[in-house]
Amino acid sequence: MNGRGPSKLVDPLEDPLPGVGTYEDFNTIDWVREKSKDRDRHREITNKSRQSTVALLHSISDAFSGWLLMLLVGLMSGSALAGGIDIASNWLTDMKGGVCLNGFWFNHEHCCWTSNETTFQERDQCPQWKSWAELITGTSEGAFAYIMNYLMYIFWALLFAFLAVTLVRAFAPYACGSGIPEIKTILSGFIIRGYLGKWTLIIKTITLVLAVSSGLSLGKEGPLVHVACCCANILCHLFTKYRKNEVKRREVLSAAAAVGVSVAFGAPIGGVLFSLEEVSYYFPLKTLWRSFFAALVAAFTLRSINPFGNSRLVLFYVEFHAPWHLVELAPFVLLGIFGGLWGALFIKANIAWCRRRKTTRLGHYYPVIEGMVVAALTAVLAYPNSYTRMSGAELISELFNDCSLLDSSQLCGYPANMSKTSVGNSLADRPAGEGLYTALWQLSLALFFKMLMTVITFGMKVPSGLFIPSMAIGAIAGRLLGVGMEQLAYYNHESFIFKGWCSPGADCITPGLYAMVGAAACLGGVTRMTVSLVVIMFELTGGLEYIVPLMAATMTSKWVADALGREGIYEAHIRLNGYPFLEHKEEFEHSSLAVDVMRPRRSDPALAGLYCISQALVESTRYSGFPVVVSQESQRLVGFVLRRDLLISIENALQRQEGVVSASRVVFTEHTPSQAPDGPPPLRLRGIMDLSPFTVTDHTPMDITVDIFRKLGLRQCLVTHNGRLLGIITKKDILKHMAQIANRDPDSILFN
Amino acid sequence: MNGRGPSKLVDPLEDPLPGVGTYEDFNTIDWVREKSKDRDRHREITNKSRQSTVALLHSISDAFSGWLLMLLVGLMSGSALAGGIDIASNWLTDMKGGVCLNGFWFNHEHCCWTSNETTFQERDQCPQWKSWAELITGTSEGAFAYIMNYLMYIFWALLFAFLAVTLVRAFAPYACGSGIPEIKTILSGFIIRGYLGKWTLIIKTITLVLAVSSGLSLGKEGPLVHVACCCANILCHLFTKYRKNEVKRREVLSAAAAVGVSVAFGAPIGGVLFSLEEVSYYFPLKTLWRSFFAALVAAFTLRSINPFGNSRLVLFYVEFHAPWHLVELAPFVLLGIFGGLWGALFIKANIAWCRRRKTTRLGHYYPVIEGMVVAALTAVLAYPNSYTRMSGAELISELFNDCSLLDSSQLCGYPANMSKTSVGNSLADRPAGEGLYTALWQLSLALFFKMLMTVITFGMKVPSGLFIPSMAIGAIAGRLLGVGMEQLAYYNHESFIFKGWCSPGADCITPGLYAMVGAAACLGGVTRMTVSLVVIMFELTGGLEYIVPLMAATMTSKWVADALGREGIYEAHIRLNGYPFLEHKEEFEHSSLAVDVMRPRRSDPALAGLYCISQALVESTRYSGFPVVVSQESQRLVGFVLRRDLLISIENALQRQEGVVSASRVVFTEHTPSQAPDGPPPLRLRGIMDLSPFTVTDHTPMDITVDIFRKLGLRQCLVTHNGRLLGIITKKDILKHMAQIANRDPDSILFN
Repeated sequence: MNGRGPSKLVDPLEDPLPGVGTYEDFNTIDWVREKSKDRDRHREITNKSRQSTVALLHSISDAFSGWLLMLLVGLMSGSALAGGIDIASNWLTDMKGGVCLNGFWFNHEHCCWTSNETTFQERDQCPQWKSWAELITGTSEGAFAYIMNYLMYIFWALLFAFLAVTLVRAFAPYACGSGIPEIKTILSGFIIRGYLGKWTLIIKTITLVLAVSSGLSLGKEGPLVHVACCCANILCHLFTKYRKNEVKRREVLSAAAAVGVSVAFGAPIGGVLFSLEEVSYYFPLKTLWRSFFAALVAAFTLRSINPFGNSRLVLFYVEFHAPWHLVELAPFVLLGIFGGLWGALFIKANIAWCRRRKTTRLGHYYPVIEGMVVAALTAVLAYPNSYTRMSGAELISELFNDCSLLDSSQLCGYPANMSKTSVGNSLADRPAGEGLYTALWQLSLALFFKMLMTVITFGMKVPSGLFIPSMAIGAIAGRLLGVGMEQLAYYNHESFIFKGWCSPGADCITPGLYAMVGAAACLGGVTRMTVSLVVIMFELTGGLEYIVPLMAATMTSKWVADALGREGIYEAHIRLNGYPFLEHKEEFEHSSLAVDVMRPRRSDPALAGLYCISQALVESTRYSGFPVVVSQESQRLVGFVLRRDLLISIENALQRQEGVVSASRVVFTEHTPSQAPDGPPPLRLRGIMDLSPFTVTDHTPMDITVDIFRKLGLRQCLVTHNGRLLGIITKKDILKHMAQIANRDPDSILFN
Repeated sequence: MNGRGPSKLVDPLEDPLPGVGTYEDFNTIDWVREKSKDRDRHREITNKSRQSTVALLHSISDAFSGWLLMLLVGLMSGSALAGGIDIASNWLTDMKGGVCLNGFWFNHEHCCWTSNETTFQERDQCPQWKSWAELITGTSEGAFAYIMNYLMYIFWALLFAFLAVTLVRAFAPYACGSGIPEIKTILSGFIIRGYLGKWTLIIKTITLVLAVSSGLSLGKEGPLVHVACCCANILCHLFTKYRKNEVKRREVLSAAAAVGVSVAFGAPIGGVLFSLEEVSYYFPLKTLWRSFFAALVAAFTLRSINPFGNSRLVLFYVEFHAPWHLVELAPFVLLGIFGGLWGALFIKANIAWCRRRKTTRLGHYYPVIEGMVVAALTAVLAYPNSYTRMSGAELISELFNDCSLLDSSQLCGYPANMSKTSVGNSLADRPAGEGLYTALWQLSLALFFKMLMTVITFGMKVPSGLFIPSMAIGAIAGRLLGVGMEQLAYYNHESFIFKGWCSPGADCITPGLYAMVGAAACLGGVTRMTVSLVVIMFELTGGLEYIVPLMAATMTSKWVADALGREGIYEAHIRLNGYPFLEHKEEFEHSSLAVDVMRPRRSDPALAGLYCISQALVESTRYSGFPVVVSQESQRLVGFVLRRDLLISIENALQRQEGVVSASRVVFTEHTPSQAPDGPPPLRLRGIMDLSPFTVTDHTPMDITVDIFRKLGLRQCLVTHNGRLLGIITKKDILKHMAQIANRDPDSILFN
C-alpha cells in the first residue's frame, strides 16, 4: 500500500523495495492487500492514459490482456495438451495389445482406417493390426497365444508404470495425484512454489499418458485440470498484470480449472460450473464470463483436433430413445443411495490407506515398488475380464450405450429372434440371452475389481484422476440394476408397477440411462459435486429430459454421503496434507467468541514481544507479523507490519541508509521523534506499515469472524477490547480451533 | 444477538422484545446480524435435537423445509402463474381478432383443434373461428370488413390497456414495470414492504395478462420474475425459518428469480445463471443448488400444463440444419455492434423519457391517459403491418425459424421453382422472390415502430418486460442482415469471400440464425447480461455449435454498450429511483480514504450527540444508530446501538419496568453503576447493544471499505483512529460519495 495518492503521507525513503509485499513459499496471501495493489496499478494506468496516446494504447492493451490470456489458455490446453494426451494415451493403450504393421505410430483405430475393410465387424480386425502373439508366433489362436498376449500386456503395463513413477520421482514430485486438492488450496490463497511450474507441466503430461496407458484404475480428467492450471500459470508470465499479482493470477487459474473440465468432458458450461462450485474460492462475475470464453475456445480447439475420431465435442455421446417413467425414480434413488454409500466408504478407505502410506516406510521409500506392485496386480487381474481390460472411458461408453440392432456388444446379447419386435433402431424389452448373462457376471467381477483397485490407486505417486474410475463403478452398478429392471419388467409387465406404461413389445426400460445415473451418483458421492455434475451429464446427452433422474440420484447420493462424513475426497486430502483451507461450504456452528480463539489466550501470560519491535525481537520470534500500538500503556492500535517486509526493509536500510546500525530504533510515527543525542538515527518504516489492519472486538462471535475471514480472504485479524489491542487471530488459529471442535488433532494444520 | 450462549453476559431483563432486531420500511438490512441470528437459531435446534425425538424430528423437518419450499415455489410459479398467464394472454390476444363460435373461452388455436380440418393451411382458418367483421357483417372480405376488424382491434387494445392501468393504480401501485430493478435492490438487502405481497401478486398477474394482450410493446418475461418472487415471498410465510429471517428469505427470492426466467424461456440452467449474474447479491452454493431444483420443477410443471401446445419446454424451439462458417463471424460481430448501440441508445432515451414522466405532471396525474394514448398509438400503427400485429413472441418465433419446404410464411417467399434444389427438408440458398421483398419492407417498418414504442412503453404504469421487445428488435435486424447475406452469397458465390464454402445449390446461410444472434445482441446491449444470455439461447437451440456466434455477438454488444454508458437498464432504473444499491460488478476506482467519506467530516464541528445517548437525543435526531464509547474523554469504542431497537426498548421499559421514568439514564455497562441516591434507577440496555460493531481505520482506502461493505453486506461501519472513535460511514454515505465522484447529484440517493 505504498504510494497511494496525495491524501496519504508517504515516507520518501520508502520507495517499494524489491521483495516487500511478496510472499514466502507455503504461506497464505492477503487478498485485500493484493486486490488493492491491483486497483492502484489500474488507477495509475487509467490516469496516465489521459496524457498520451502511447499510454492510452497501453491502457487498452492492459484491458484486453485478460481476454488474450484466456484465448491462449484455451488454445494451449485444448490443443497441445488435451489433444496430445488423448492421442498419445490411445496409442500407448493399444500398444499393450498389439502393433500396426503400417507403422508402429498408428493406434488400432488409425491402423484399420487405412485398410479397405468397410464392414463394421471387420474394421476392428484388419490384417495390418497384429496382436503380439500373432507377430511373434504367427497365430492368434490357442492357449499359448493367449498367454503370450497376457504376458505382453503385463510387460507393457509394468514398463509404463515404472516409467511414470520414476519420472515423477526424479523430476517433479508435484506431478503426482489428481492435483485438485492442491489447486483448491492454491486458489484459496495459498502459495506452493513450483506446483504449477513448467517442470510439473512437462512431467505431468508425460506421466499422465504413461499412467493411463498402464491400465491402472485411474482417469486423466482430474489431472487435466492441473495441467490446464499449469498452462495458465506459465502463460501468466507473459503479462505483468498477472505475473505480479497473486489475486489476478488466481482469477486466471479459476478459469483454467474450467478449461480442464471442459476439455476432459467436452462440457464447457459444466466446466465453468465445476470451477465455480468445486474448485474456486474467489469467483467474480468477470471471471465467470472469461472462464466461459476460455472453456469454449478449448472445447472447440479440441474438436478441431478430433482425438476421439468422431468429430463430437463430448467424451461419451449418448442418445436415448425412450422416455423414463415416474416409477423408475425408485431405482434411480436406489442408485443414489449406492453412490452415496460408495462415496463415503471410498473416502474413508482411501484416506486410511493414504495415511498408512504417509506414516509407514511404504510411501516414503518404495513408491516405485508400490507402483509396480499395483500395476502388476491390476494387469494380472484385469486382462482375463474384457470389461476391465478395456480402458475406463471405453467401458463407460459401452455401458452408457443403448442397445441398438447393429450392436455386436455382449451387453446386447439378447436372443436374435426377439429383435424382430423392434421399432426403428431401438429394441423393445427382451428376455436376457446367454451372452448377456455372461456379461453380467463379468461386470459384477469388474465392479469389485474396480472398487478395490481405485481405493489403493488414488494417492499413489503417479498422476491419477478419480472421475473415470468413480463413474465406471457407478455405471457398472447402474447397468446391472438397469438390466435387472428390464428383466423384471419383461416378466412382470402385468404387475401393478409396470401396468399401464410398459406393455410387452415396448421399449420402456433403458439400461444405458441407469448406467449414466449410476455414474453420476457415484461421482457425486465421492466428490460431492451437484449442479456441475448434473450439467456435465446434461451436456453429454443434450436432453433436458434426463436431468430429473440425474438430479434425484445426485441429490440422494450427496445426502447419504454427507450423513456419513461431511467431506468430499478433495477436502479430505487437503486435510490429510494439513493445508490451510477455510471451507466455503460449511457453516461454522459453534458459539465461541473471538476472544476464545485469539492469541495470546486469556489465560496466557501477556507476550511482551507483541508490543514493540526490535530487530532482535524480529529475529528471535517466528511471528509472521507484528501489530504497532501508540504506546505500551494505552495499547491503542496504529497498524500492522509483516515480518517479511520488516526484515527486508531493515536489511536494506542497514546496507544503504547512512547511520543506521543494528542498534537503531525502528519507528513508525509520522514525524521523526526527537532523537537521543548519543544514539544512532532511528529507522523510519511507516511506509511498510499497513495503516488499515482489520480488527474485530473480543465479543465478536466466531461464526462472524470466520465469515469475515472467508469473504475478505484475510490472513490475520487483530482483536480489540474497548479500543485497546488484545490479541491476534490468524487463519491457522481458526483452522486449529475448528479442528479442535471437530475432535481432530489441531496440530494437523501445518502451514500458515 | 441476544442469548448467544454461555460465554456472553446476557442481561436477564433483556429477553428479546418484539420488534427489536426488525427493520423499518425503506431501510437496509444488516446481513451479518441476520445471518448470525439464523445460525443461533440453527444451533439451538441442533442442540435440542439431541435431547428428544420430537426435537430431532423438528430438526430434520427444519433441514428439509428449504427443499419443500423450493418445490412449492417451483410448482406454484410453474403452474398457476406462468401456465395461467400464458393461456389467458393467448386467449385475450386472439380475442382482439375474433371469437370462437364453439365457446368464447377458446382461443384461436384451440377453437380450430376441435374442427376436423387437417391440412396445414386450413387449420388456421377453421369455420368455427370468426373475425369480428365476419361475426357482425357476415363477410370477411372488402375494405369495410377490414376497417371493422381494425376498429375492433383498437377497441380491445384500449379496453385492455385501460383495465390494466386502472387496476394497477387502484390496487397495487407496486405491480407496474418489470420489477427486476426493485428485486435487485431488495436482494441486495433493502426492504420495500408490500412489494412482494399478495396484492401485488394478484394484480400483477391480472394486469400482466391485460397489458400483454393489449398489444403494447412489452413482454411478460421480466414481470414473471417479479411474480415468481411474490409467490416465493408469500410461501415463505409458511415456514418460521424463512418468515423471520431477511437473509434466509433472500436466498429463496434468489431462487425464485431463477424460476421466473426458467418458466419464461423454458431454460432452467439459463435461469439459474441469470439469477446468479444479474439479479442476486448473495448467492451461496446452497442457493445455487436449490435454485436449480426449483427451476427444474417449474419448467417441468409448465411443460405438463403445455400452454404452448407443442409439448416443448422452450418458448422458441429452433433447429438449424446448416453449420455456420468462420467468415460469418463478421456479420455476427456487426449485429453485436448494432445491439450495443441500440442498448446504449435505448437506455439513454428511456431514462430521459422516464425522468420527464417523473418530473412533469404527465406521470403523476395522468397515467391512465398516458396508457390509453400509447395503447391507441400502438394499435393504430401496429394493425396494418402483419409483423407488428402479431405478438412479440410469435414474431420472434417466425424470425428464428429456418425456412423449410412446407413453410407458407411470407418470409420464405422464394420463387417456388427454386425449391426443387432442396436437400431433405432444408432449402438451398435462393434468390428472393416478390413475397420476401414485401416482407423485408414490412420488417424494416416494424423495426422502427418497435424501437420507438419500446422506448416510450417501458416504465409506464403497467407491468412491462423488456426481454421480448428487445429480442424482437434484434431478431428483425438480424433477419434483415441474414437475408441480405443470403442474397449476397447467392449472387456472388464466386467471390473470394464465399468461394470454397458456399457453392450454388448449397444451403450455406441461415437467416434464422442471424435473427437469433441479433436478438441475443440486442438483449445483451440493453441488459448487459452475458453468460446467462448465451446459456438461455443455447437451451433454446440445444446445440453447442451455435454458442460461438452468440458469444461473439453478446461480447461485442456488451463492449460497445459499456463504452457508451456503464449501466444496464436495470441499474439505470435503480439509480433513477434513488434506491441504495451497491453494484457488485463495478470496481471502486477512486483513491479516497475512509476519513474523506465518514461523518462527521474532518471539517465538520464535532457532533456532541454522537457520544452519549438520552431519550431526548434519540428523539431529536434522525440518526439510525449510535456508537457507544467508554467515556467522552477517551472515546474508545464499546459497541453500537440501533435507533429502532433503542426506541422500542425505552418505550417498553417505560411501560413495564418499575421506577424507570423518562429522566432515567440509559447505561450500557456490564455492571450497574453506583446509583445517584436521588435520581431514578438507570435503564440497563446492554442486551440490545451490538458488541461487535465493524470498524475500519481512518486510513483505510475507500476501495477496500467498499469491498467490505459489499462482501459483508454492511449497513454502517465505524471509523477509528489509533483506537479512538472518529466517525461513521453508512451505505448511503458511500453511495453519495460514489455519485459525487461520477459527477452526479449525491442527493439522488434517497434511502438509507
